[in-house]
Amino acid sequence: MSENITVAGLVATPIKHTVTAEGLEISSFRLASTSRRYDAASKAWVDGETNWFTVTAFRHLAANVHASLDKGHRVVVAGRLRVREWRNGEQLGRDVEVVADALGPDLAWGRAQYTRTPRRIA
Amino acid sequence: MSENITVAGLVATPIKHTVTAEGLEISSFRLASTSRRYDAASKAWVDGETNWFTVTAFRHLAANVHASLDKGHRVVVAGRLRVREWRNGEQLGRDVEVVADALGPDLAWGRAQYTRTPRRIA
Amino acid sequence: MSENITVAGLVATPIKHTVTAEGLEISSFRLASTSRRYDAASKAWVDGETNWFTVTAFRHLAANVHASLDKGHRVVVAGRLRVREWRNGEQLGRDVEVVADALGPDLAWGRAQYTRTPRRIA
Amino acid sequence: MSENITVAGLVATPIKHTVTAEGLEISSFRLASTSRRYDAASKAWVDGETNWFTVTAFRHLAANVHASLDKGHRVVVAGRLRVREWRNGEQLGRDVEVVADALGPDLAWGRAQYTRTPRRIA
Repeated sequence: MSENITVAGLVATPIKHTVTAEGLEISSFRLASTSRRYDAASKAWVDGETNWFTVTAFRHLAANVHASLDKGHRVVVAGRLRVREWRNGEQLGRDVEVVADALGPDLAWGRAQYTRTPRRIA
Repeated sequence: MSENITVAGLVATPIKHTVTAEGLEISSFRLASTSRRYDAASKAWVDGETNWFTVTAFRHLAANVHASLDKGHRVVVAGRLRVREWRNGEQLGRDVEVVADALGPDLAWGRAQYTRTPRRIA
Repeated sequence: MSENITVAGLVATPIKHTVTAEGLEISSFRLASTSRRYDAASKAWVDGETNWFTVTAFRHLAANVHASLDKGHRVVVAGRLRVREWRNGEQLGRDVEVVADALGPDLAWGRAQYTRTPRRIA
Repeated sequence: MSENITVAGLVATPIKHTVTAEGLEISSFRLASTSRRYDAASKAWVDGETNWFTVTAFRHLAANVHASLDKGHRVVVAGRLRVREWRNGEQLGRDVEVVADALGPDLAWGRAQYTRTPRRIA
């Protein structure tokens, strides 16, 4: 199974935008999502822990992410989760990535002026 | 369990915006989501069936949905699914609703100019 | 987009099991899922509303659902949501279905003795 | 937002079961989930990459996981995703955990004999 995931959170870095030699557009950024939990002791909702993700977008979506988003924006991202292990010499690491299928600025935190753009062939 | 659901699709009606006597803002619209499926016969991806939802937003999110969205826009919505049965005399019906927690114009289909708005107490 | 959904709830009807003329096995049942919500007035978690679904399984999964599950069991179901409108003469209706990809008895409510079965070609 | 996630995959380690000094039961195991993707070149569905998770269950669910599951079983898990960073001297790492809310042996891969167990107060 491919793990579908939806994350709402804060764009925590500038958008990194690249175009490969083959002309493939890629945008990526770090996203911080802080859950809210009910605290039985204080009988109030409080900030819980924060999950960090690398969000990656390709092609048409990458171009529009680059043109529309910035550090500090609130977004909602729907995509597929990828957990990747890597080795760099002695160093072992693990990346947690969301490959975005749909992505937009979150209207729970702001307003947006939206313009449809022509879609090239996917 | 509360059923969390994420839908990406087309805003198919104008935004209906109301304020209750108690001052609660509510925005709602109909959302059409058409899946894509791989057709073995034609060996191509084709349009599948369409799911229809009523999307409902409250408070701050309702105000920003009203100010930002319109019929024909593409959006991504994360929320909780509600399946409700109703009776109207002889008539029985069933409504399928998504109560939105996060919602934005989908950058897979367009660009957005986003402005953070001050949040009143939730 | 195809709406992925996960539901944990109660099997509310006997399992209906059929085999089509082409030899396709199908199992289906009604599933009731009751959410829990925090009630600010009583400062306690209480039962919320109930969502009803028709769960449908095909092929190998259908055979094992038929052999393993019964009314009154608690299950967890992961699949794709289908909202279908139908007309029967004057009557219009709407069905809310989950086409199951993965499905099992919920260990949050009981124990299970599990045996892997050989898989025919999907 | 808390990231809800559903994973179907293979139990890749024996179940680790502990009881804290306070009497809290905890069960955990490693879960491997391999996605399937359509390969345009060979025009066939092929194995994609594998996501690895640590699945953790508490209390009643932990007891039933311990009594019911084993390495090699196929399961479906619904829960909340936690991405945690840790430091051990020079070493930095990242854990990807699913805290299970509902969890069962997957009937897509086998049969189960299920017995409801009395629930202690959650």
